[in-house]
Amino acid sequence: MKTMVTLGEILIELNALTSGPLRNVNYFEKHVAGSEANYCVAFVMTGNKCVYLGRVGNDEFGKNAVEWLRGKGVIVDKIKIDPNPTGIFFIQRDYPIPLHSESIYYRKGSAGSKLSPEDIEEDLVREADLVHSTGITLAISSSAKDTVFKAFSLNRERSFDTNIRLKLWSPDEARRNIIELFKEYPLKFLITDVDDASILVGRSDPDEAVRLLREYADVIVMKQGPRGASVYYDGGKYFAHGYSVPVVDVVGAGDALGGTFLSLVMSGYPLDKALDYAIVSSTLNVMIRGDQENLPSLQDIEAFLREMNKS
Amino acid sequence: MKTMVTLGEILIELNALTSGPLRNVNYFEKHVAGSEANYCVAFVMTGNKCVYLGRVGNDEFGKNAVEWLRGKGVIVDKIKIDPNPTGIFFIQRDYPIPLHSESIYYRKGSAGSKLSPEDIEEDLVREADLVHSTGITLAISSSAKDTVFKAFSLNRERSFDTNIRLKLWSPDEARRNIIELFKEYPLKFLITDVDDASILVGRSDPDEAVRLLREYADVIVMKQGPRGASVYYDGGKYFAHGYSVPVVDVVGAGDALGGTFLSLVMSGYPLDKALDYAIVSSTLNVMIRGDQENLPSLQDIEAFLREMNKS
Amino acid sequence: MKTMVTLGEILIELNALTSGPLRNVNYFEKHVAGSEANYCVAFVMTGNKCVYLGRVGNDEFGKNAVEWLRGKGVIVDKIKIDPNPTGIFFIQRDYPIPLHSESIYYRKGSAGSKLSPEDIEEDLVREADLVHSTGITLAISSSAKDTVFKAFSLNRERSFDTNIRLKLWSPDEARRNIIELFKEYPLKFLITDVDDASILVGRSDPDEAVRLLREYADVIVMKQGPRGASVYYDGGKYFAHGYSVPVVDVVGAGDALGGTFLSLVMSGYPLDKALDYAIVSSTLNVMIRGDQENLPSLQDIEAFLREMNKS
Amino acid sequence: MKTMVTLGEILIELNALTSGPLRNVNYFEKHVAGSEANYCVAFVMTGNKCVYLGRVGNDEFGKNAVEWLRGKGVIVDKIKIDPNPTGIFFIQRDYPIPLHSESIYYRKGSAGSKLSPEDIEEDLVREADLVHSTGITLAISSSAKDTVFKAFSLNRERSFDTNIRLKLWSPDEARRNIIELFKEYPLKFLITDVDDASILVGRSDPDEAVRLLREYADVIVMKQGPRGASVYYDGGKYFAHGYSVPVVDVVGAGDALGGTFLSLVMSGYPLDKALDYAIVSSTLNVMIRGDQENLPSLQDIEAFLREMNKS
Amino acid sequence: MKTMVTLGEILIELNALTSGPLRNVNYFEKHVAGSEANYCVAFVMTGNKCVYLGRVGNDEFGKNAVEWLRGKGVIVDKIKIDPNPTGIFFIQRDYPIPLHSESIYYRKGSAGSKLSPEDIEEDLVREADLVHSTGITLAISSSAKDTVFKAFSLNRERSFDTNIRLKLWSPDEARRNIIELFKEYPLKFLITDVDDASILVGRSDPDEAVRLLREYADVIVMKQGPRGASVYYDGGKYFAHGYSVPVVDVVGAGDALGGTFLSLVMSGYPLDKALDYAIVSSTLNVMIRGDQENLPSLQDIEAFLREMNKS
Amino acid sequence: MKTMVTLGEILIELNALTSGPLRNVNYFEKHVAGSEANYCVAFVMTGNKCVYLGRVGNDEFGKNAVEWLRGKGVIVDKIKIDPNPTGIFFIQRDYPIPLHSESIYYRKGSAGSKLSPEDIEEDLVREADLVHSTGITLAISSSAKDTVFKAFSLNRERSFDTNIRLKLWSPDEARRNIIELFKEYPLKFLITDVDDASILVGRSDPDEAVRLLREYADVIVMKQGPRGASVYYDGGKYFAHGYSVPVVDVVGAGDALGGTFLSLVMSGYPLDKALDYAIVSSTLNVMIRGDQENLPSLQDIEAFLREMNKS
Repeated sequence: MKTMVTLGEILIELNALTSGPLRNVNYFEKHVAGSEANYCVAFVMTGNKCVYLGRVGNDEFGKNAVEWLRGKGVIVDKIKIDPNPTGIFFIQRDYPIPLHSESIYYRKGSAGSKLSPEDIEEDLVREADLVHSTGITLAISSSAKDTVFKAFSLNRERSFDTNIRLKLWSPDEARRNIIELFKEYPLKFLITDVDDASILVGRSDPDEAVRLLREYADVIVMKQGPRGASVYYDGGKYFAHGYSVPVVDVVGAGDALGGTFLSLVMSGYPLDKALDYAIVSSTLNVMIRGDQENLPSLQDIEAFLREMNKS
Repeated sequence: MKTMVTLGEILIELNALTSGPLRNVNYFEKHVAGSEANYCVAFVMTGNKCVYLGRVGNDEFGKNAVEWLRGKGVIVDKIKIDPNPTGIFFIQRDYPIPLHSESIYYRKGSAGSKLSPEDIEEDLVREADLVHSTGITLAISSSAKDTVFKAFSLNRERSFDTNIRLKLWSPDEARRNIIELFKEYPLKFLITDVDDASILVGRSDPDEAVRLLREYADVIVMKQGPRGASVYYDGGKYFAHGYSVPVVDVVGAGDALGGTFLSLVMSGYPLDKALDYAIVSSTLNVMIRGDQENLPSLQDIEAFLREMNKS
Repeated sequence: MKTMVTLGEILIELNALTSGPLRNVNYFEKHVAGSEANYCVAFVMTGNKCVYLGRVGNDEFGKNAVEWLRGKGVIVDKIKIDPNPTGIFFIQRDYPIPLHSESIYYRKGSAGSKLSPEDIEEDLVREADLVHSTGITLAISSSAKDTVFKAFSLNRERSFDTNIRLKLWSPDEARRNIIELFKEYPLKFLITDVDDASILVGRSDPDEAVRLLREYADVIVMKQGPRGASVYYDGGKYFAHGYSVPVVDVVGAGDALGGTFLSLVMSGYPLDKALDYAIVSSTLNVMIRGDQENLPSLQDIEAFLREMNKS
Repeated sequence: MKTMVTLGEILIELNALTSGPLRNVNYFEKHVAGSEANYCVAFVMTGNKCVYLGRVGNDEFGKNAVEWLRGKGVIVDKIKIDPNPTGIFFIQRDYPIPLHSESIYYRKGSAGSKLSPEDIEEDLVREADLVHSTGITLAISSSAKDTVFKAFSLNRERSFDTNIRLKLWSPDEARRNIIELFKEYPLKFLITDVDDASILVGRSDPDEAVRLLREYADVIVMKQGPRGASVYYDGGKYFAHGYSVPVVDVVGAGDALGGTFLSLVMSGYPLDKALDYAIVSSTLNVMIRGDQENLPSLQDIEAFLREMNKS
Repeated sequence: MKTMVTLGEILIELNALTSGPLRNVNYFEKHVAGSEANYCVAFVMTGNKCVYLGRVGNDEFGKNAVEWLRGKGVIVDKIKIDPNPTGIFFIQRDYPIPLHSESIYYRKGSAGSKLSPEDIEEDLVREADLVHSTGITLAISSSAKDTVFKAFSLNRERSFDTNIRLKLWSPDEARRNIIELFKEYPLKFLITDVDDASILVGRSDPDEAVRLLREYADVIVMKQGPRGASVYYDGGKYFAHGYSVPVVDVVGAGDALGGTFLSLVMSGYPLDKALDYAIVSSTLNVMIRGDQENLPSLQDIEAFLREMNKS
Repeated sequence: MKTMVTLGEILIELNALTSGPLRNVNYFEKHVAGSEANYCVAFVMTGNKCVYLGRVGNDEFGKNAVEWLRGKGVIVDKIKIDPNPTGIFFIQRDYPIPLHSESIYYRKGSAGSKLSPEDIEEDLVREADLVHSTGITLAISSSAKDTVFKAFSLNRERSFDTNIRLKLWSPDEARRNIIELFKEYPLKFLITDVDDASILVGRSDPDEAVRLLREYADVIVMKQGPRGASVYYDGGKYFAHGYSVPVVDVVGAGDALGGTFLSLVMSGYPLDKALDYAIVSSTLNVMIRGDQENLPSLQDIEAFLREMNKS
């Protein structure tokens, strides 16, 4: 069993029960979400351990987040309680773009954004097998950014998902901050996608973008939406195709892919097989509302693949 | 800003929450509908003004209709309150034909069907930029039919959607009445589809049908279901393809297309661009229950098109 | 086992899922209802047989009604299919009067209202142990009224629930028609309440009203809402108190009481005991939406009474 | 018809679909709320006009608020669009205190809190028959507070509901700010309750509290929860008892009472009758989720009272 | 009208309201199911009669099953009440395999499994036009197996659907028992699919498998999932293609196909046309939760086919 | 912090979404339940630790139970996975007895019933501050009964809730087995109610029953339904009254009371205060579906009591 430490903000997600503009939606379904929490649960579901570092509010939504993650097997005893409210977001689905989802945040000044370097138990981070965070954590506050920098300074086994959210910062700010991190702390694993790569290095062709990003990371996963994803590594590239399924909500699909990929690689799977499995995780993820409910076990991923190979 | 006056019947729609024959459906979702009301909201959502002429009952459903339309920005102060009940209809979805919907009306003798020529404020109609109605209004009562004739006599900027509902009249009656109207009051805009055209002029090939209909209208929009739609005009034709999306309920899609098309043309868009945009409106419309909840603004149509052009 | 024949209109009920004015209600729950159908199911649930005479539309709601009643054990093979639509109604709950319900009908010209004397199989009615109808059937059409008169002419074991609905006729019409029926065909059982009695004989005091109604019926049940009900018979009167329970929807409570009462009396229970049991039936009925779902078996009535006697 | 101008923040309410601590609630129902908006709709439903001054975000929830209020007949064209998000709140019901509700706000830095003196069209306020605001508007920001002061400086027909929310400010801040307002701008109508009065003047006995508050207002309405409410006026006092009904959510009940009361008094009803009617409004309000859906018309209030007088 | 007698276990189905692993599903929807009951309703919906032989518990779910089937027109008066509980099962949808469903049974020792040879009224079986059962009934208990053997001994018009459920027995047990039955009682109709055939005769190619199964049955229907189905008969084979529709739950689709096929063949339709129609039945079936709610009438099948031929 | 070890069966609860006989209920809501699990969560919510000893199936419901309880803070790592299915039960509400609930079990041969003495880690039980079980665990299997006996042999700090379920055993069996346990292993805490006591010692008067039970336990809590509860101890008795609240589902109320009471007593609260607080726990419990969702923290109990003392 490997241990990943992840730093980020847990959010409560309120997903529209019906499609269309939120003004005409009458009911919302509550879920626990947040990119790093999604990574963590994906990691745990496939047989490893994950310690979550972050803050939640001293409120029902904070308790909700901690209870849910603890239930799923995430190690939550380092999560701090903060006097600010737990961040939340709404999801509008299929409007104005079919099969796409839009997030509306209420997270400014949230408990999660108060994450700060002092929240880090240094030994814990030092002894972890992997330290992971995302562009979201860099964006939510300068103290949160400092916390990522500090954590990355303590352990060379680093993973990062770019996850650029243009509601949190401008393309410029994103590029400047992320590249700053990469330069200071080169990565073992970089998970990104075509849109983010284009912001970071100005190239939208995956191969081109990776060529420019290679200096920052040993292994790069380039997500390509429903088409699939590629993994680039020393001297090689492997493309895993996606599966065509009815899409309910794409939010969290990238985290599912990333978290499952990291877990399997840490467990010793070869990169290509890990990516094949990780694609299953994101495929199942888009079929439901909620980011963590369909994160699969190894056994379930294998059942999926057996069936697909049959027909 | 242009002003359209439309004449018709607002209905309360009770859409089955689950697919299949209504006998096995336990829950229904309420919406405000009615072809002309759908046109009106589509017109308003894209930046113009719409005055609704019609009657609703002195009951909760009538109040519901007026409040909803007023909320959406429709000018409702000319709507009359009638002692008869507000008309309603149920929608059965996906049975017996997948992706199709069947309407079951409770509108006989309804408030809306009592629309009568005296409901027309003549100056209002005269000064409108466009006067619109549909085959449904011709069919619901002879006083409603007379009202359309009177309105069309007051203003030469006429638009008409054939919208033949065979639960309201026979093909013969539909043809006789609609052609009578067309002969007396030639149109600026005719919106129709292959089935209706076949009833009216006995041709199911779109080009053929339009050739015979051209004498009645300057511009003809021929809806062709999920495939898209064509607009025919003096010496030209433009076909706009549809988009493939998960279909929930097709009721109202034609009105979405027609209302958005008219609005954009009135705003000065060229016919082809107006049709491209209008197709987005009907595409979004079929993804939800309800006829008006997904009617898009110009900005949302453009977001949709940007995304489609990307991939 | 005794057999009751009942004549009336089966309706589909659309009960508001949330309280308040219907304009603000978004979801409706479908049930099978209609006073005589409620009587019939109450009669069957307590161990007897009931034949329903009436018409439903050739539509999903008509099929729904027949399938449901057949499922509950009602003999439905005499129900006729009529080209008109099955009648429906909506229920608005708790507004403007808390714990009260308001019915909004869409039943004018319905299949059920086309009930006509030729629908009666004479031998069937002659041989029944009891023939039952209500003021609603008198009110919905003159052919329906004629049918009740004809049925009552064929069998002296008559039961009638006044059930005056002021949305169907005026107090004057109600009184004139009902008293005409009573004079021509005196009853074995009259089920009524204080409001109806006041319309019929101008007295709102139960004892007073019964004194004036006694000439028309051997046994009179006077329903008194949540307080309970009284049964008057040759030389006697028995009052059964109601039970205080959370009220969801009172529609159908009187039918529950009447149907259970008639069934038990026909099975040989003394009038007082039958009324005690019948009160349980109406008590359970007000705790849910739907008129027939909580109609109890004898065994369930007894379980209720055992519990109440315990505490 | 009288015109009230009201200043405040419209909020989107997300009401728990099931009772209990929010961590265990899975679904939320959306409503439009906000104390001043509630007042406004209550005022309009009973036959008068209300102009809303405030700001909403340039987002779906802001559009939702404006469309809903416009639908209900509120004059919304003075509402400004602000770049900050529309404020929202969640309601937790029946826990930890049965029949009570707890509000959890996400409104810090909201569009609504940006209300500022320049939002006031002076003539509009000067010509209104009544200018109304609440303690909430004083509490949300200093610019909002300034706006209330400015509005009150323009018109002597002032109304104020104390509505002290201890999640927005301390008792001390509340008292200081509210009394400052009262001293500078004495009121025509003061609506308050026992808890607020105790914070303002240190007395929890209604009569005592009113004695100390009388210098600030001509007419004082003292709400006393389910027991009812009293109105105090020059030399007199009238107590109107409450009605016992099943309670779903008490949020908004005080606004219902206040808005209906002001409207009837402005329409010329005597104070006691206005209060009797206003109590009906708050009684209906607690029977549902949502603050505005059960606000009654005069006709519905009278139907309620007729029924209560009957039994 | 032809009469089929069928022997089996009626189950109550609890279908997940949302997709994904059941641990994360909060709501379940109740339906009546069970392979033989599905066959029976499909048979009745297309114009024939079906007698159900089986047992249900003396509980609400047993009563539910009987009332529902009686409502649908199934002859239920031979169903016995057993002291054991009515069997139930849960359906998990789309996880871990998209568009697939998994059944979780609670049926061990159930009332239905107590079916025993003495439950057979011999004349009834002898005089039936067809006697049908499935592999499930063979698997649930030895007394149930004996009952099938006895019924098949009484009538040579036998039909059997292999329906091998590997949660009820091993492939070996399935093969041994089913082949034993086939050897003793050759069939008129065998309905099976590729997976079951492979277990029975070790061949997964449909033609190959049928070649080996032909000795046991005159007519063999080989279901091939969404692709369609083939019917093999004396010297011939006919393939009917499936239709591509949005899949909600595939449980019961095979029974829909089989029951409709048998009914039409018994009514005199040629085998190919019967199969074309039967495919419509299974196509509609997969579009909803529930196994019986979308079973079509002949008229609805024809409406479906007319539409498909149009486009 | 004190540690309680509890032995029992965790069940998945499927609670009817609407009241009435289950045959007419269409939707069910899933919860985690089981008397000992309820005790455990009540214990943890009020600040102590609880170790659960038991078995769940290797299925989604088993995983559901473990994840939920782990989320709530229960120590679940001693729970064993068993090849049999996780037990479940349905709850029928308000029928046939208003405000009562009926449980329908599917737990025969369940994983939980396989609890066996070898599941006990002896040191864990020896070192616990309290060992708790209930009559249900005695009833589900002889191995489960043996497990309770063994656990009680290891630690003298014993607690027991009689919880006699007549669907699991006869009154005679219940009395014989429970008294056998009591005689062998006298208790520190006995939690019971009037019905159970009457089965055990033939007295339904609380004081009388306690007089006969005193030889088996130091402290006896006698639950008396909505009226409240009494605690009897050496030389004393204290009665705590209940609170009148709207009742949704009473299942689990007794466990809420018992679990909170034990926790507070273990934390050092005097018996009377512990009972006052425990009553709050059961009061909140009956207001929702679900047995554990409303179990309160100390802080929430105190908020409740403060409010009640105010009015």
